[in-house]
Amino acid sequence: RTVIVKLSSCFLQGILERLDAGEIVIGDGGFVFALEKRGYVKAGPWTPEATVEYPEAVRQLHREFLRAGANVLQTFTFYASEDKLENRGNYVAEKISCHKVNEAACDIAREVANEGDALVAGGVSQTPSYLSCKDKAEVKAAFRKQLEVFMKKKVDFLIAEYFEHVEEAVWAVEVLKESGKPVAATMCIGPEGDMHGVPPGQCAVQLVKAGASIIGVNCHFDPDTSLETMKLMKEGLQAAKLKAHLMCQPLAFHTPDCGKQGFIDLPEFPFGLEPRIVTRWDIQKYARKAYDLGIRFIGGCCGFEPYHIRAIAEELAPERGFLPEASDKHGSWGDNLSMHTKPWVRARARREYWENLKPASGRPYCPSMSKPDGWGVTKGARELMQQKEATTEQQLKELFQKQKF
Amino acid sequence: RTVIVKLSSCFLQGILERLDAGEIVIGDGGFVFALEKRGYVKAGPWTPEATVEYPEAVRQLHREFLRAGANVLQTFTFYASEDKLENRGNYVAEKISCHKVNEAACDIAREVANEGDALVAGGVSQTPSYLSCKDKAEVKAAFRKQLEVFMKKKVDFLIAEYFEHVEEAVWAVEVLKESGKPVAATMCIGPEGDMHGVPPGQCAVQLVKAGASIIGVNCHFDPDTSLETMKLMKEGLQAAKLKAHLMCQPLAFHTPDCGKQGFIDLPEFPFGLEPRIVTRWDIQKYARKAYDLGIRFIGGCCGFEPYHIRAIAEELAPERGFLPEASDKHGSWGDNLSMHTKPWVRARARREYWENLKPASGRPYCPSMSKPDGWGVTKGARELMQQKEATTEQQLKELFQKQKF
Amino acid sequence: RTVIVKLSSCFLQGILERLDAGEIVIGDGGFVFALEKRGYVKAGPWTPEATVEYPEAVRQLHREFLRAGANVLQTFTFYASEDKLENRGNYVAEKISCHKVNEAACDIAREVANEGDALVAGGVSQTPSYLSCKDKAEVKAAFRKQLEVFMKKKVDFLIAEYFEHVEEAVWAVEVLKESGKPVAATMCIGPEGDMHGVPPGQCAVQLVKAGASIIGVNCHFDPDTSLETMKLMKEGLQAAKLKAHLMCQPLAFHTPDCGKQGFIDLPEFPFGLEPRIVTRWDIQKYARKAYDLGIRFIGGCCGFEPYHIRAIAEELAPERGFLPEASDKHGSWGDNLSMHTKPWVRARARREYWENLKPASGRPYCPSMSKPDGWGVTKGARELMQQKEATTEQQLKELFQKQKF
Amino acid sequence: RTVIVKLSSCFLQGILERLDAGEIVIGDGGFVFALEKRGYVKAGPWTPEATVEYPEAVRQLHREFLRAGANVLQTFTFYASEDKLENRGNYVAEKISCHKVNEAACDIAREVANEGDALVAGGVSQTPSYLSCKDKAEVKAAFRKQLEVFMKKKVDFLIAEYFEHVEEAVWAVEVLKESGKPVAATMCIGPEGDMHGVPPGQCAVQLVKAGASIIGVNCHFDPDTSLETMKLMKEGLQAAKLKAHLMCQPLAFHTPDCGKQGFIDLPEFPFGLEPRIVTRWDIQKYARKAYDLGIRFIGGCCGFEPYHIRAIAEELAPERGFLPEASDKHGSWGDNLSMHTKPWVRARARREYWENLKPASGRPYCPSMSKPDGWGVTKGARELMQQKEATTEQQLKELFQKQKF
Repeated sequence: RTVIVKLSSCFLQGILERLDAGEIVIGDGGFVFALEKRGYVKAGPWTPEATVEYPEAVRQLHREFLRAGANVLQTFTFYASEDKLENRGNYVAEKISCHKVNEAACDIAREVANEGDALVAGGVSQTPSYLSCKDKAEVKAAFRKQLEVFMKKKVDFLIAEYFEHVEEAVWAVEVLKESGKPVAATMCIGPEGDMHGVPPGQCAVQLVKAGASIIGVNCHFDPDTSLETMKLMKEGLQAAKLKAHLMCQPLAFHTPDCGKQGFIDLPEFPFGLEPRIVTRWDIQKYARKAYDLGIRFIGGCCGFEPYHIRAIAEELAPERGFLPEASDKHGSWGDNLSMHTKPWVRARARREYWENLKPASGRPYCPSMSKPDGWGVTKGARELMQQKEATTEQQLKELFQKQKF
Repeated sequence: RTVIVKLSSCFLQGILERLDAGEIVIGDGGFVFALEKRGYVKAGPWTPEATVEYPEAVRQLHREFLRAGANVLQTFTFYASEDKLENRGNYVAEKISCHKVNEAACDIAREVANEGDALVAGGVSQTPSYLSCKDKAEVKAAFRKQLEVFMKKKVDFLIAEYFEHVEEAVWAVEVLKESGKPVAATMCIGPEGDMHGVPPGQCAVQLVKAGASIIGVNCHFDPDTSLETMKLMKEGLQAAKLKAHLMCQPLAFHTPDCGKQGFIDLPEFPFGLEPRIVTRWDIQKYARKAYDLGIRFIGGCCGFEPYHIRAIAEELAPERGFLPEASDKHGSWGDNLSMHTKPWVRARARREYWENLKPASGRPYCPSMSKPDGWGVTKGARELMQQKEATTEQQLKELFQKQKF
Repeated sequence: RTVIVKLSSCFLQGILERLDAGEIVIGDGGFVFALEKRGYVKAGPWTPEATVEYPEAVRQLHREFLRAGANVLQTFTFYASEDKLENRGNYVAEKISCHKVNEAACDIAREVANEGDALVAGGVSQTPSYLSCKDKAEVKAAFRKQLEVFMKKKVDFLIAEYFEHVEEAVWAVEVLKESGKPVAATMCIGPEGDMHGVPPGQCAVQLVKAGASIIGVNCHFDPDTSLETMKLMKEGLQAAKLKAHLMCQPLAFHTPDCGKQGFIDLPEFPFGLEPRIVTRWDIQKYARKAYDLGIRFIGGCCGFEPYHIRAIAEELAPERGFLPEASDKHGSWGDNLSMHTKPWVRARARREYWENLKPASGRPYCPSMSKPDGWGVTKGARELMQQKEATTEQQLKELFQKQKF
Repeated sequence: RTVIVKLSSCFLQGILERLDAGEIVIGDGGFVFALEKRGYVKAGPWTPEATVEYPEAVRQLHREFLRAGANVLQTFTFYASEDKLENRGNYVAEKISCHKVNEAACDIAREVANEGDALVAGGVSQTPSYLSCKDKAEVKAAFRKQLEVFMKKKVDFLIAEYFEHVEEAVWAVEVLKESGKPVAATMCIGPEGDMHGVPPGQCAVQLVKAGASIIGVNCHFDPDTSLETMKLMKEGLQAAKLKAHLMCQPLAFHTPDCGKQGFIDLPEFPFGLEPRIVTRWDIQKYARKAYDLGIRFIGGCCGFEPYHIRAIAEELAPERGFLPEASDKHGSWGDNLSMHTKPWVRARARREYWENLKPASGRPYCPSMSKPDGWGVTKGARELMQQKEATTEQQLKELFQKQKF
């Protein structure tokens, strides 16, 4: 194994300077899923009022990602637009303002970033306003409200992420560009494209034309599927003779079986996804493939725990020249098992072993793939169901029963 | 759903008073696995020097378990005997004394316990001294060294846990009893009994006779297997007309396929266990079965994250009369999905759905069960390998190849 | 590979002479399942009127088993007792008498046996009379009716097979012994014993005491489970200081997940068992294990096709000194693939490849194990259902719904 | 259930008259696989000398397919070209001439067809001559030799089947057209097209232009995949404004995981395919989908046993107005289980049960999908291996090891 000199890397430069110089930038992992398991985020709403309610829990997670090798800490402002917080946040006893949630998120991210010289990225995501067909001005106003906080708190750059429709993503980029800061934009789409049918290549082109310097995908699909989408985006940009940096932040769940709308439609979402969680070795393969595809901003989304981020940093240590801090507590490719008393456990202290392991689920009564709900639903029925929010459970059941899965 | 009045429970009483009164006591989850994923514990050695190095990380995990409903916080002193720390802890740059590790563990646990009135339990576990055939006096001396710290730091009671041999567990109980504090003792065994072939019922009897007031199992096997072992222990006590409280802290991994020595021998241990992670619903079933079996100290071991502990507290909320704090961020049986915009996701907001879900692994190239390493190894070969630590890899390979798996 | 001299073996001796001399006797495979797939037997009734209706189809299957290496041809008289044929045979347009079915079965078996010097065994199986609690005399009368035909047609020996209750099996043996011919007796039980709870060891003892010279199991369980039962039978005989030849004719379906009553209770029975069909290599392993356990009458039951019987003969060819005729069309361990044009297919022409292959099902939406129906049914409910034949489907459904599976 | 009047259908007309009239024509199943399991065909060579050696075995299989509902009996002349028989048939003790094999095949098929008025189709398949790059004249001569026998024996029509290259298939059609009889042509390709990269739509067009009246696919892929290919062929013809009847004869193995060259490359081919065998219910779904796609010649290839063909006939009985003879021994959708003594087995006597069953494999140590051999092999290496027949096993092994699968 190559000897790797461990350096405390020095981030004096901004995100674009670094990417332009060919550096690998490691993103952080998924906050809503990790904090849901820790008891601070409610699945369903998935809103980030914990920044105000339990700042020490948010801070600790940031620290773990930093220690694992993340060069970018995203403010925990997912779904923190005012319309979303009002819409779904009503279970929070005491009303916490959108402003406060965003401010606290920025403060915490900066505090931890300073502990390790990482960059802070302010993030916006898709809005209920767009989904309920509000006009462009209203949707943009929602983004602008968050942007004001980001500017006041001096984040280093901006990310528009988790957009199912490129139209809304473009609006978000346009607003964020008003700041003069670098803008990254990622969509939660797969190879089939956005919910209106715009293919990934065209999405990429529109985002770059709107002003994004970094584009890609996040969430909804597993690493392999996300890289397929990235490939299509890259080809789209090449065909249009446009240039942008590439960024990928997939799920840490295996989802070979999901449909156009990703893991939301899987029967296991969100409380039965455990058997799909990827291993650190899966992530090392992902990091390598992402790198080989030319992606230089490599991170994760829902399901990514600190050790998954560390796996990216370890895989790309030869290229970067250093290991992350948390590798103090990790042997590359399991080499920490070489001292085990049992010879058959010692035999696992090698790359070939973990690279080829096909891990069992311990669940003989469970299948290996699921059919997404709504799978096989005729286009007509699906639209019907999506249009009519008031559809009764009985009607739904009947609709489903008419179609054999 | 039954309306549950939420109370801040008041713990003025000790562990035995509570159990004697018929209360359900909820334990905490697994520290070494959770902190390994967060970047603070090294797999292989699994030693807890993080109490000194990264106290805020240990404190945060304690807090999460407390918030999830744990009534007992175990000091993070697993494998913190002096011989173990010396044996394996040599990768720690600056030597941290056994004394310091144990003291810091007690301080952190007490600090967090005070935030919620939980009890603090000082814990000891099996020692390299015993495994390398040191005599009784030497092994007991190792336990006594930790006990001194626990006494000084005034823990509420003591746990001897993770013993593969009842002989060593009895020695540990004898030492801990010297303190005059209540002693719990759990072994990491399955229905086949301890490594010397002592069946679970006899182990239980010996532990009670040695002075343990609470006995049971922890680690090495999944909830279902652990409950089988508990049943045998309970029957052993009944046959011997002995009384003790029962305690169970299993893995949060499905391991129907493991052999006598539990998950250590599974090919996935420790870096490919993800597909085996149990869901919160699996835990609710476990909590109910444990309760029905008469177990009143119910917690978890490796793999148990805060949301698994919360699942115990939620399942037993009707009996206990209150929900844990972290249920603020969790709807019982997924009811927080009832507001989702998609009808098929709304349809998941019910107990029947999650109770019956057979979650897919998303891994069609992987099996559902593994054969444990060493499985099929003839007794002779196995003993040979265990005796000769110096067995070369080549000899090992040859031994294995001679036997078709 | 050892060169094996191919001999046309010469069967001048009876079954006991051969077994006493230490020879390996290969049985035939399963008629009802094979002929159901070929279109001549109806699943559900499983009666053998095809001997009269379609003699050429029955003859052809006998021939294939003979050619595959079978030394014993069982008359196709499964479920051919008069009560059974009357009970279920009413779908047969023109009533065919029990007498005719049994006579035709004997004639066909003898005709084919003469083509290769195999032995003919007349077979009886469990009766509806016993299951509906008719008295001993009536049940024995049913067996005697078949026996009369067997005597008239001069079969070489007799087999009482497929008994769920040792009591009825003993009655059958007693009747068959009246003939003076050697009697073999096999029960369709697993390691848990017969339906009245008699353990395998005791069943074996009772059968031998009743006069059976060869005892064992057939049907209901897969090879591995059946061999476990055989082990218990053997131990039972040893403990009782009794001697008998051992015989095993298991299913050719993998059934690690079935309960006491075997594959009948599996949800896949009888029309969805395909993914459980064993390979020829599974059978070679079974034949070897059976041999090693001291079993010398080795055959198969439901699911065994001619190529499975050939696999027994090929595995034991070194011991027997010859290959079966059908090995003309089969290379040992796939060596007929050695001429394939593709190198990766040629690479399959070796024992190690097939021995270690873990064949995929091509069914990612299916589990690897099932819970048997009636599994988890409380004993009370089960008895209720079995007693009340008139239970409506609605009542049944309600009973099932009350119990979560 | 609709009452179906059972008729003995009367086939006075030829294949084209029937298809032109909109009738459904049911093909037969797979001979080489069925006869391999019965002991009459050698896997690897897969040649049909059994027509001469064991005519009664071939006759019996024809009869079973006829009885199951087949309207067309294909002569068992697969791989019966002279070059193939010489090439691989050398294991047959006494040399049997190509002429004799083809003549016997015609005689047997006609004999059985007359028992039920089915049509006889003479069949040719791909040749070693083409694969070893012989010229057009030589390849055509091989087909012509078989055609002479078919003409002499007065088959009703001709089928060119199992072609991996459309170029050779076109040559075969051209030769067969010389006879003046109707010609059907099917290729063993999937949605990716032929081995030279010609897409299915273009293959279809070329075959029709060459004179085929019926076109489609057979072998190499499972029903679902084959229907995808059929859809592409149909679209190709529509785009070219050509008309032809559609024919589909897929595998009876689930192969969702195979690559361009189909099941040959799966690790389970040919001796470990058991867990992939489709159920009768899978076939009913296939028959319905094929019908809905406009296919009117519906049969099967390798793996199709008589009960699979019966399943086609049962599914399409409402459209055809009659059931096949073998349905005497089969209840539609399991209704023959309605008299079972156990209520939970009776509960399986309904369509909904079998339609929704996800059958378990009973193989918890096996995966649900395999990676085809040669999968991931770089194009360069693959070509290298295919070119150099002489590649040593060692070189092959090294090539494989260099590429991680």
